[in-house]
Amino acid sequence: MVQNRLERVRARMAHYNMSHLLVSSPDAIFYLTGVEIHPGERLLCLSISQTECTLVVSALFPLSSFEFPVIYFKDTENVIEVLSQTIHEDQVIGVDKFWASHFLLKLMAKRPNSQYVVGSPAVDDVRLCKDEIEIEHMRRASLINDQVMREVIHYIETEGASGELTELMVQKKVIEINASLDVHEMSFTPTVCFGKNGAEPHHDVDDTLLEPNSAVVIDIGGRVDGYCSDMTRSFFFGTPSEKYKEVYQLVLEANKKAIAAVKPGVKLSDIDQIARAVIEEGGYGQFFTHRTGHGIGINVHEFPDVSGTSDSVCEPGMIFSIEPGIYLLGEFGVRIEDLVCVTENGCEVLNHVNKELL
Amino acid sequence: MVQNRLERVRARMAHYNMSHLLVSSPDAIFYLTGVEIHPGERLLCLSISQTECTLVVSALFPLSSFEFPVIYFKDTENVIEVLSQTIHEDQVIGVDKFWASHFLLKLMAKRPNSQYVVGSPAVDDVRLCKDEIEIEHMRRASLINDQVMREVIHYIETEGASGELTELMVQKKVIEINASLDVHEMSFTPTVCFGKNGAEPHHDVDDTLLEPNSAVVIDIGGRVDGYCSDMTRSFFFGTPSEKYKEVYQLVLEANKKAIAAVKPGVKLSDIDQIARAVIEEGGYGQFFTHRTGHGIGINVHEFPDVSGTSDSVCEPGMIFSIEPGIYLLGEFGVRIEDLVCVTENGCEVLNHVNKELL
Repeated sequence: MVQNRLERVRARMAHYNMSHLLVSSPDAIFYLTGVEIHPGERLLCLSISQTECTLVVSALFPLSSFEFPVIYFKDTENVIEVLSQTIHEDQVIGVDKFWASHFLLKLMAKRPNSQYVVGSPAVDDVRLCKDEIEIEHMRRASLINDQVMREVIHYIETEGASGELTELMVQKKVIEINASLDVHEMSFTPTVCFGKNGAEPHHDVDDTLLEPNSAVVIDIGGRVDGYCSDMTRSFFFGTPSEKYKEVYQLVLEANKKAIAAVKPGVKLSDIDQIARAVIEEGGYGQFFTHRTGHGIGINVHEFPDVSGTSDSVCEPGMIFSIEPGIYLLGEFGVRIEDLVCVTENGCEVLNHVNKELL
Repeated sequence: MVQNRLERVRARMAHYNMSHLLVSSPDAIFYLTGVEIHPGERLLCLSISQTECTLVVSALFPLSSFEFPVIYFKDTENVIEVLSQTIHEDQVIGVDKFWASHFLLKLMAKRPNSQYVVGSPAVDDVRLCKDEIEIEHMRRASLINDQVMREVIHYIETEGASGELTELMVQKKVIEINASLDVHEMSFTPTVCFGKNGAEPHHDVDDTLLEPNSAVVIDIGGRVDGYCSDMTRSFFFGTPSEKYKEVYQLVLEANKKAIAAVKPGVKLSDIDQIARAVIEEGGYGQFFTHRTGHGIGINVHEFPDVSGTSDSVCEPGMIFSIEPGIYLLGEFGVRIEDLVCVTENGCEVLNHVNKELL
C-alpha cells in the first residue's frame, strides 16, 4: 500500500519535472509511511528522488521501526547541511507548500543552482482520490461525528433553558462526547456560536450565554484512525424569525442542490456555482463570503477546493465538504455542512444528521 | 505600548537593512497590535515599512476595531497580488521565519527584483526582553501552572495505586484542572509519560498504564492573558532504583547550577554548558539529547535559545526555560524544567513546585 503510494508520487514528480521532492508536512509523511511525527518547529523532511527516499528527523523523535533510511540530527547541528546531503543533483527541487520559509531561504543559499517550486501537488494529486482503506476510515469518522452532533444538539436542547449555558460549556461537552467514543483528537477546535457570533465564520468560542430565541451554529469533527470528520449544523433555539427561516431554507437548498450535482466529470467550480447561485438568487450573495467546500482526509483541509477558482473535476474517491453559509453581521449566521465521497455515478453523503430546520 | 513596540521593530528593520517586513505569525501580530487572529492556512500579514503599517487578512476574520489600515481579501482573490500592493519598493523584504513557502515562492515570482531574507529577528529582538506588563502576565501564568502541577501530582499519588490510571486520564485531568482555574488554552499538548515512555523527550500520550515502581514525567503549561507557562517535573511512583536516584540527582544538580548562573552578561551558551557539564561528568552526556532551554512568552518557543550554538547574552527581562534531561531508551527519563526571568543581578525563578526527589 505505502510503496504503491510512493511510486505514484514519483510518477507525479516526473510529470512536474521535479528531480527531488522534500515532503515536510506530518500528514503527507503519515500518508507515505504510516508513521506520524509532529516535530514542532524542528525540521522534518522525507527527502525523495526517483531512486532514494530518506527521512531527516530530529534525534528527539526516535523511531522504533521505519521502512526507509533515517538520518537523525541533534539541535546543535546545521540541519540544512544535513538535509542538503540527501539531495544529489542541482535541478528542480519541490518543497512542501507549508514548509517554513527560513528553511527554504537557507536551502536556497546553500544550493543556489537549484530551482525551487511548490512540490506539494506531487503528493496532493495522489491524495486527491482516497483508496478503499481511506474511504472506510472516513466513513467511520463521520458516523462517529454524526453521533456526537446528535448528542450535542440534545445537550443544548436540555441544558439551554437554564439560561446559564455558554459556548465554552458546549465546546467542552463536544470534547467529552468524543472522548466517550474513544476519539481523543479533534479535526479542529470545535466551533460553537450563539446568536450574532454565528455571523463570524471562524468565531473563537467564548463565554457567550445562550439566550432564548438565538441562532446556533455548531461546526465539529474528530480524528479517527488518522482521518478527519467535519460537519456543521445550524438551528434556532426558540422561535425563529421569518428572516431566519428564509435564510435557513436558502442555505439548505444550496447544500442540497450542490450535493445533488456531485458526480464524476462535474467541475468543482460548477458545484460551487450551483450553491452560490441559490444564495445569490435569494438576494444574499454578498453574505456567502467563502468557498463552498474543501477536500478532507488525513488533514481537515486537503484538495480539491470547491470554489470558483478550482480547476478540479470530480473523480471517484474524492471526499470534500459542501458547506454554504450566510453571515449577517450583528444578527446571525447559518451554515450547513456535509462531507461527500464521489462514487462511480454520484456521491455518498457521509453525514446523516437531520438538516431540516429545527 | 503597542506603538512603542512597532517603533522598536522599525529600528531593528533599519539595523538589518530591511526596507519592508511581512509579519505573519499570529503571536507577533498579537504582540504588535493586541489582536489575535488564527487564519489557518489563509494568508495573514502585517505589512510594515518605515512609514506604513497595513494588515492583510481574509474577509472571514472581520475586525470590529483595529488601529492600523486593514485590507480584506476573499478566497477567490489572488492574495499575493493583494499583498504585493502594500509593498512600494523592490529592496530587501523580510519575511516571517515560519511563513508558508508557497506564499514566499509566489511573492518571489511576482516581485523578482526584491531580495528576500528571514525577517523575524526584527520582531524577535524586541520580544527578547519582556516589558513589565509581560513579566506580570508570565508570573501569573506560572503561578497557576504551579497549582496545576501540585494538583496533578496529588491526583497521581491518590489514583495511581488503582492500577488503572493511564497517561490519557492524567492528560485529561491536566486540562480539567486548568479549566477549573479558568485556563482554557494549553501552551502545548500536556505531556504525561509513564515508565519507559519518559525516555522519549516528546512522547505522544497514550493509554499506557501506571504500574507500581514507575518513573513519571509531567510537562505542562497553560496560556494566561496570552502568555505561556511551561514546567516539567519527574518523580518516581514507588521505590526508585539506585540508578534512577543517581540520574535524578544529576538532572537536579544540572537544573540548579544552570539557574544559579543566570544573570545579566552571562552567555546563554555558557548556561547550556554548565548544565551539560554536570551530566557529562556524571557519565550520561550522550543521553542529554536536546538544548538546555528556550525563550518563552506569547509563544511557547521564543528566543533566546539556551544551547551551545546560542549567541545571546542574558539581559534583564529575558524569560527562558532551564530543562536538562537524561533519556535512557527502554528504561526511563528524567527532565526538570523551570522558567526563569533575568533580573538586574540574577534571576527570578517563576516556578515554585518542589523538585527534590519524591
